[in-house]
Amino acid sequence: MTRAFNFSAGPATLPEPVLKQAAAEMLDWHGSGQSVMEMSHRGKDFMGIRNQAEADLRELLAIPANYKVLFLQGGATLQFEMIPINLLRGKPAADYVYTGVWAGKAIREARPFCQVKVIASSEDRNFSYAPPQSSWKPNQDAAYVHYTANETIGGVEYHWIPDTGNVPLVCDMSSNILSKPVDVSKYGLIYAGAQKNIGPAGLAIVIVRDDLIGHAVPTPPTMLDYKIHADHDSMFNTPPTYGIYIAGLVFQWLKQQGGLAVMEQKNIEKAKLLYGFLDQSRFFRNLVKKQDRSRMNIPFTLKDEALNEEFLKQARARGLQQLKGHSSVGGMRASIYNAMPLAGVKTLVNYMQEFEARFGK
Amino acid sequence: MTRAFNFSAGPATLPEPVLKQAAAEMLDWHGSGQSVMEMSHRGKDFMGIRNQAEADLRELLAIPANYKVLFLQGGATLQFEMIPINLLRGKPAADYVYTGVWAGKAIREARPFCQVKVIASSEDRNFSYAPPQSSWKPNQDAAYVHYTANETIGGVEYHWIPDTGNVPLVCDMSSNILSKPVDVSKYGLIYAGAQKNIGPAGLAIVIVRDDLIGHAVPTPPTMLDYKIHADHDSMFNTPPTYGIYIAGLVFQWLKQQGGLAVMEQKNIEKAKLLYGFLDQSRFFRNLVKKQDRSRMNIPFTLKDEALNEEFLKQARARGLQQLKGHSSVGGMRASIYNAMPLAGVKTLVNYMQEFEARFGK
Repeated sequence: MTRAFNFSAGPATLPEPVLKQAAAEMLDWHGSGQSVMEMSHRGKDFMGIRNQAEADLRELLAIPANYKVLFLQGGATLQFEMIPINLLRGKPAADYVYTGVWAGKAIREARPFCQVKVIASSEDRNFSYAPPQSSWKPNQDAAYVHYTANETIGGVEYHWIPDTGNVPLVCDMSSNILSKPVDVSKYGLIYAGAQKNIGPAGLAIVIVRDDLIGHAVPTPPTMLDYKIHADHDSMFNTPPTYGIYIAGLVFQWLKQQGGLAVMEQKNIEKAKLLYGFLDQSRFFRNLVKKQDRSRMNIPFTLKDEALNEEFLKQARARGLQQLKGHSSVGGMRASIYNAMPLAGVKTLVNYMQEFEARFGK
Repeated sequence: MTRAFNFSAGPATLPEPVLKQAAAEMLDWHGSGQSVMEMSHRGKDFMGIRNQAEADLRELLAIPANYKVLFLQGGATLQFEMIPINLLRGKPAADYVYTGVWAGKAIREARPFCQVKVIASSEDRNFSYAPPQSSWKPNQDAAYVHYTANETIGGVEYHWIPDTGNVPLVCDMSSNILSKPVDVSKYGLIYAGAQKNIGPAGLAIVIVRDDLIGHAVPTPPTMLDYKIHADHDSMFNTPPTYGIYIAGLVFQWLKQQGGLAVMEQKNIEKAKLLYGFLDQSRFFRNLVKKQDRSRMNIPFTLKDEALNEEFLKQARARGLQQLKGHSSVGGMRASIYNAMPLAGVKTLVNYMQEFEARFGK
């Protein structure tokens, strides 16, 4: 068996020890005679798995006691809709920051539910930066302020937390959650699809401050009401049990690595290696403003776009997979989440050096 | 490793060959160097897995070409809400048949969206039978008629398909789908949570006739609109990829068994063995009307309820797990889905015989 270095933006590479443990336990979890997939979600074994996963996530992110952790289905996309349904609290409008494809989707899905006010945007320079807070034009009567902590396609990341005063800050953290420590108390709500830094697709995690729960619009679909899920510890209906189990294994792996401060250093080192190469290259380049560059998703282009297919083909031959950029922006993209080892980035940079030496005349 | 006989109602036992294959492929699917969990959902490998799963399901159930197959999240519970949101088509009311806990949940979730008319019920005899069609009082102007093909908790199953004329028939088939051949063309819509006869929790399958798609209420949450999912081949957002993969392996296993006609014979044989024992026992009994008994979920009680804990304890010691009945009805329940081998039912019956001989004086 040969494991590839998988640069997919999501679903994405997972830690090899997690996959090994999942394979070893597939037919018989801890002597139970069952796969986790086969366990009743209300039984003692699965409840233990679920509770340990939540406890580990709370420890990793130092989540304050007045925040609920919800394990939901429907991905970040369903959250785009659940957020206005639950957080408007009778107000007519919400503030959004527009920084690319994913912020745009959040905005589009919110429009049927409220007046969306775009208070800052990076559209003027092709979504290549994070608008500084000094440029934001917030509304005092906004129900909340929504922003996208990391644009997976554009490769733009906030390396600071916005200050929105008393207006709850809502953050799509899908593609950089758990990549560094974060002060949860600055947020009203954090959400993330699991399929990048957490686990398999089909699980979404919502971290929400107590006082924001219980204010949904009248008679929402029950499954779209945070209060229902919070009141039932995310067991109102059968949760995605296997996804929660894998996420729990990832949380344990993160703790074994030393926690999020250690992960942040590793992620800085990996990103520095690739950006450092890109910045001295005369063939490859990344156009994101330096201070706003993502540590998770690094888009880059070749000077000669006609060589794109050749670049991808030779990469695959070396076990470097899923480097093709998103169709909406073209070029290449290397997603280097927590589970991508430094060795993967080194192998990629070595390959890019050789490719440039051969084709970059 | 010792595998238990797992009688859980769901999540439930899966075919051992499926779990073995999933374990063997966990780190490297077919030489791709990746787990299925790590694959981009839009890549060639996963698209192949998804398309094969749909093709196999279509073959198993002989699904006509004018029906769409959707792979969704949120379980059957979200369908309780999506059905009225999508199928009312401007009509104010829908007909429901009330046969137990699950039909009751479908009714409760539909009430905020339409006038629910209960056209038949088995509440009069503690939900111990399926109301015969002659007792139904349908409304000609109903948007659809909803029924629950198998009550997982009550152990009541329809062994016939209702005839609702031109009014679309909608069926919650969560706990008996794929247990026998079914004439899909009699239905407007069939839905099922995966965690019983299909695969892991977190995946729901919807089989819906073309002409019923595209009539959702104005501006529904996008994720609750069948048309969005149908137009995007269930890839509007990242689908629960690993669940779809496991479901696909289950479909292949079902084909290897000989298809649904063969599965039906096996399921009849297993059910006959257990009901046959129950009916001659003076200690155990099942109270469901004989012609409406479920082949999938068989609830039973002990004459002396004080022995319940002892029965469960000794069962566990023999590797017979999850026999405790649902808390709302008490007693015991043996769920014997497709993946429960005949040997499991034999072992259970042998144990029950011994238990009765010892305690049933």
